[in-house]
Amino acid sequence: MSAHLSLGELHGSLSDPLLDAMTFLNEVTERYPDALSFAPGRPHEGFFETDRVSEYLDAYLDHLRGRGLTEQQVRTALFQYGPTKGIIADLIARTLANDEGLTVDPASVVVTVGAQEGMLLVLRALCAGPEDVLLVSSPCYVGVTGAARLLDIATVPVPEGDLAALTAAAQRLRGEGRRPRALYVVPDFANPSGTSMSVEDRARLLDTAAEEGLLVIEDNPYGFFAREPGERPTLKALDRHRQVVYLGSFAKTCFPGARLGYVVADQEVRAPDGRTSLLADQLAKLKSMTTVNTPALSQAVIGGMLLGNDCRLRDANVPARAHYAANLTVLLRELERHFPAAERARLGLSWNEPEGGFFAVLDVPFTADEAAMERCARDHGVLWTPMAPFYPAGGGERRLRLSISALSERQIEAGVARLADFVRANAG
Amino acid sequence: MSAHLSLGELHGSLSDPLLDAMTFLNEVTERYPDALSFAPGRPHEGFFETDRVSEYLDAYLDHLRGRGLTEQQVRTALFQYGPTKGIIADLIARTLANDEGLTVDPASVVVTVGAQEGMLLVLRALCAGPEDVLLVSSPCYVGVTGAARLLDIATVPVPEGDLAALTAAAQRLRGEGRRPRALYVVPDFANPSGTSMSVEDRARLLDTAAEEGLLVIEDNPYGFFAREPGERPTLKALDRHRQVVYLGSFAKTCFPGARLGYVVADQEVRAPDGRTSLLADQLAKLKSMTTVNTPALSQAVIGGMLLGNDCRLRDANVPARAHYAANLTVLLRELERHFPAAERARLGLSWNEPEGGFFAVLDVPFTADEAAMERCARDHGVLWTPMAPFYPAGGGERRLRLSISALSERQIEAGVARLADFVRANAG
Repeated sequence: MSAHLSLGELHGSLSDPLLDAMTFLNEVTERYPDALSFAPGRPHEGFFETDRVSEYLDAYLDHLRGRGLTEQQVRTALFQYGPTKGIIADLIARTLANDEGLTVDPASVVVTVGAQEGMLLVLRALCAGPEDVLLVSSPCYVGVTGAARLLDIATVPVPEGDLAALTAAAQRLRGEGRRPRALYVVPDFANPSGTSMSVEDRARLLDTAAEEGLLVIEDNPYGFFAREPGERPTLKALDRHRQVVYLGSFAKTCFPGARLGYVVADQEVRAPDGRTSLLADQLAKLKSMTTVNTPALSQAVIGGMLLGNDCRLRDANVPARAHYAANLTVLLRELERHFPAAERARLGLSWNEPEGGFFAVLDVPFTADEAAMERCARDHGVLWTPMAPFYPAGGGERRLRLSISALSERQIEAGVARLADFVRANAG
Repeated sequence: MSAHLSLGELHGSLSDPLLDAMTFLNEVTERYPDALSFAPGRPHEGFFETDRVSEYLDAYLDHLRGRGLTEQQVRTALFQYGPTKGIIADLIARTLANDEGLTVDPASVVVTVGAQEGMLLVLRALCAGPEDVLLVSSPCYVGVTGAARLLDIATVPVPEGDLAALTAAAQRLRGEGRRPRALYVVPDFANPSGTSMSVEDRARLLDTAAEEGLLVIEDNPYGFFAREPGERPTLKALDRHRQVVYLGSFAKTCFPGARLGYVVADQEVRAPDGRTSLLADQLAKLKSMTTVNTPALSQAVIGGMLLGNDCRLRDANVPARAHYAANLTVLLRELERHFPAAERARLGLSWNEPEGGFFAVLDVPFTADEAAMERCARDHGVLWTPMAPFYPAGGGERRLRLSISALSERQIEAGVARLADFVRANAG
């Protein structure tokens, strides 16, 4: 036996071009540490205070004591193995009620290690065999296509917001003897496109999904961060027939280092003997094979943050919302300033104008691939993310994603100036 | 679209009898809360102190400051997304050197959400297609067979400690055109059998695995808890050819609520272009599709515990070791007292005498199934775990597992007395 393994004899997902692209992006980011980076989708750190972690933890433990737990039971809750579905479903349900107007039975909540584990569990539960297919809104968040590849689940992209294409894809797949199971979608400020669905489109999406027998997997990490007031209801809030499996995350509303997410899965599952359970309980069984439990430590700290904010994260995130909104406004203003309408028509340049969130997309008159990205970092000191890896079936070669979440307004101004130089230098 | 899903249309692992068995065990445990339980493999809680969590966290953050990180960088390390392989590999490597005499390059360590995520990643990396098979020492820990089922990976059981059977299984599989990839084994105080491998057997196992082209996946959650001094080297410590992938866990040596484990994967992986990487780096790519990061919060708290103990968990666990050792001694003594040799010969009863760890196995003269377990809880107020679910290919129907980790000596005395009544009542 040799210690030398060949990549080709390992699982296929390890030879995936998308993974290579992400690895390359990380490498370039490390090689140019002084570049201004529009690449990472991580939250602004200005609101994090290390000293407060112990306060959050204590607040949660006090909450347990207040509910009548003995000191021994409090210790067990924090230190031991616990219920697979987690220990703060009640607080999550209260927060969803306050922030999203969502009435959720805590029994239908599974607390997960980030929304990523939630995706993995939902995909695993729904896709039983090679004929099962996941439809994904395209361009698509790489986390869900990654989870699908890890599980050898086929994904079929459907252009974002195109319901006719959704119907056509579902019918074509069924015609081929395959079974389209669900559509993955980020209705609010999607990663990577930044776009959102209108209320009318949300209702139409639910109707179309019902007609085609599809569940909808709604992923909502950015819903809070609108540029202007006037939030739209989540798909789950519009869901009258338990069609929607909802993925939530505290990475952007609390902090990523807790790795805390959750799934709301209130669908009923019928066993051969006629007994029914919630899809959440089935996901919990799968979770016992992935991570056993979500760390009680993370649940306790996030639980304490929820309690400290009266289970109202929308209010708690007012400063964060103002920050992201201002940043997005600055980005769009600076793009406009560097490329007035006539100039961008001449160059063949355009961008979308997201109503909130972390991301905007720039259409450029050249190939925005890894080589271009590296050149831009080296020669212009600015980084961005190529869009092509977000298109599972190809496309997006002349698009790039700009993220504004981790920068200051000054950095965005400087970054757009550098980017403008790069675009002009490459616009032929 | 109906909200009603049928279990049969979900993934096959959800219809697994093993999962049903575990669910049933949990239900019975909840239904008989006053029963003395030899069932759970969780650690003793007497050593946990909630007040100290903040101390551990502070110790780790101070350590980062001491390494020259600015306050901003410390904040980023705790709150943000971080390196996929984790942030405390250096402390884990120091601990392995101190406690196991293992020299490990921190670059070959991936910090995971418990050893369970480590199993999932290793199995996923090694098993690329339907011809790939995982060999498992039988009776076998349910976590690894569960992870295999989740990934649709075939497992083939090999009787614990039977090297001839290992060779035969590997050769038979290859003869069938299949590819045996690795053997999963717990060499120290295995769950569920409680047995350990001798030093000679460890060396022979590595030789046999090398002959058959198998990697060895060594899972070592209980290695510290010997009843008598005289620890044996881990397989990884004997590994001269990078044959062994090592799974570590802090669940029993620190606490389960952090859900912290790790993989040591120092195997070299060669890409088609000739470039090499460590298997650990490949596992990290897969981890980006399961949980993205292990919570920095958990890593920081366990990191602080390691620092506070000078990276010597063997010393830190002297009280825990004494507790488990005393408990196992009491269990074996009480079994002996209730069933002297002549009596147990008459009844057809026997048990093994593990040298440490949490578990012992009782061979009984009747079927020790779920119905018997429930009867025992109801009529005698004592719980245990049926062994049959630990045998992937059948067997163990007249065996039960006794865990001593979460009980006191008094409880073990009372529990064995109750168990003795149950055995006599069922011995026909």
